Amino acid sequence: METSSLPGKELAAALNSATRERAAALTESRGRAPQLMLVVANDDPASGWYVKSLQRAAERLGIICDTLDLGATATAEAIRERLHALSADPAVDAVMLQTPLPAGVGLNDVSIAIAPAKDVDGVSPASLGLLAAGLPGFPPATSEAVVELAKHHGVPLSGRHVAVVGRSNVVGKPLAQLLLAEDATVTVCHSRTTDLPAATSAADVVVAAVGRAGLITGDHVREGAVVIDVGTNEGPDGGIVGDVDAASVDGKAAALSPVPGGVGPVTTALLMRHVVTAAEALG
Amino acid sequence: METSSLPGKELAAALNSATRERAAALTESRGRAPQLMLVVANDDPASGWYVKSLQRAAERLGIICDTLDLGATATAEAIRERLHALSADPAVDAVMLQTPLPAGVGLNDVSIAIAPAKDVDGVSPASLGLLAAGLPGFPPATSEAVVELAKHHGVPLSGRHVAVVGRSNVVGKPLAQLLLAEDATVTVCHSRTTDLPAATSAADVVVAAVGRAGLITGDHVREGAVVIDVGTNEGPDGGIVGDVDAASVDGKAAALSPVPGGVGPVTTALLMRHVVTAAEALG
Repeated sequence: METSSLPGKELAAALNSATRERAAALTESRGRAPQLMLVVANDDPASGWYVKSLQRAAERLGIICDTLDLGATATAEAIRERLHALSADPAVDAVMLQTPLPAGVGLNDVSIAIAPAKDVDGVSPASLGLLAAGLPGFPPATSEAVVELAKHHGVPLSGRHVAVVGRSNVVGKPLAQLLLAEDATVTVCHSRTTDLPAATSAADVVVAAVGRAGLITGDHVREGAVVIDVGTNEGPDGGIVGDVDAASVDGKAAALSPVPGGVGPVTTALLMRHVVTAAEALG
Repeated sequence: METSSLPGKELAAALNSATRERAAALTESRGRAPQLMLVVANDDPASGWYVKSLQRAAERLGIICDTLDLGATATAEAIRERLHALSADPAVDAVMLQTPLPAGVGLNDVSIAIAPAKDVDGVSPASLGLLAAGLPGFPPATSEAVVELAKHHGVPLSGRHVAVVGRSNVVGKPLAQLLLAEDATVTVCHSRTTDLPAATSAADVVVAAVGRAGLITGDHVREGAVVIDVGTNEGPDGGIVGDVDAASVDGKAAALSPVPGGVGPVTTALLMRHVVTAAEALG
């Protein structure tokens, strides 16, 4: 079987085109562009690279993207205070907290201070609760990107068995909620799953969201399955590689999303769509 | 294979014994017994029967259980207002909203008004968010009862494959979160699952939480699996029957929890434990 690709750039471009129009219309009507505030509390090079890519993406769409750097030694209390203030600031439409956080500071400790209306990456417990309850709110953009990428390429989800590998609060668990809402039968696998190849081989669609290069091989995928790779790991040559060993899956899977160029650009496009949605709601 | 039973009464008695002691100590120290307020907005006989059983259970444990009846035609706004007021009332330790709700009123529309600190059955979006984020809060008692019943009877969950049939916000979805926290590999099945017998037969443990009598038969369960029945359906003779066709599973499953007398008494015991925990925290 030839393995086709599931690129994300075309979908991202279509999403961005609509976002650019909405951003322009809102800028016109309220006299101020949508504004995203990135809050940084690290000196991690990968985080810095990601912040720059978000700034470039926002600029191309007519969204203002500012960065508030609290330093790599900021306390949980200091971060919470700033997130509270930004949540209350009418000049800020959207707030996104970058990881990693300072040593000893958990995402839950601080994300509670982001108001759900501005929590465009859906990281706060309140946003996770809205998602779990099926209420309107922002789902984590990466999880949403997996579902949107599958839909864009005509991968059926309703009634299909989807295995999600990874149970993080930012990807695996919210993705399971989104897939259930799409009427998929969902299995969540993780580091303690006894027989991972057996669990994932039972699925029509396998989503790899662990953060370990090459974790998913041909042994984990049944003939004709669709594989979506959420991983972004540093490759041997400094580039980005996914969680899937593409060469090993090639010829067995029906389709595989590339890294880079698959889930990634769709994630960024959805994040920017969330910013404009938040800005429209705040007016 | 002989199918053993997984009764809940022994575990419930042990839980109740500890709850009774804690309730007595709190009543002594603060001069007031723990108080649970049941909010009713229906004239459903089954709900009335359940309210009476909760009142009896509370009385035996030294917990005051009052009922506030808003009538079967209460509006969402009226229910929210009362739940807000109860959440703010220092004389009330715990609030539990009964179902069914009046026609046109969704659980999400009103449960948002229950403060998480008093939401002892974990139904509000905020409580679901705490659960999803892994933060302290009250999980829905029925979901917790499934996990506690399994543990009590020595059913291993870590690394095992558990199939949850049913994706409701009050049982199936929160149960999936609790099982993931126990390191189980979790598959959530539902009405749109294409091949339910195949999906459940892959599991070491099958949890039936749909609300349809006899839905789960021997065809859904592999030899030696453990089956936990959450269903409470009206039986042909007016009694309560579960979601599992016990006769059909008998001799194939390693164990089956009975209905009544399985998950049910553990659920009530955990609910009462939550009431005392809420009261202790409020002081």
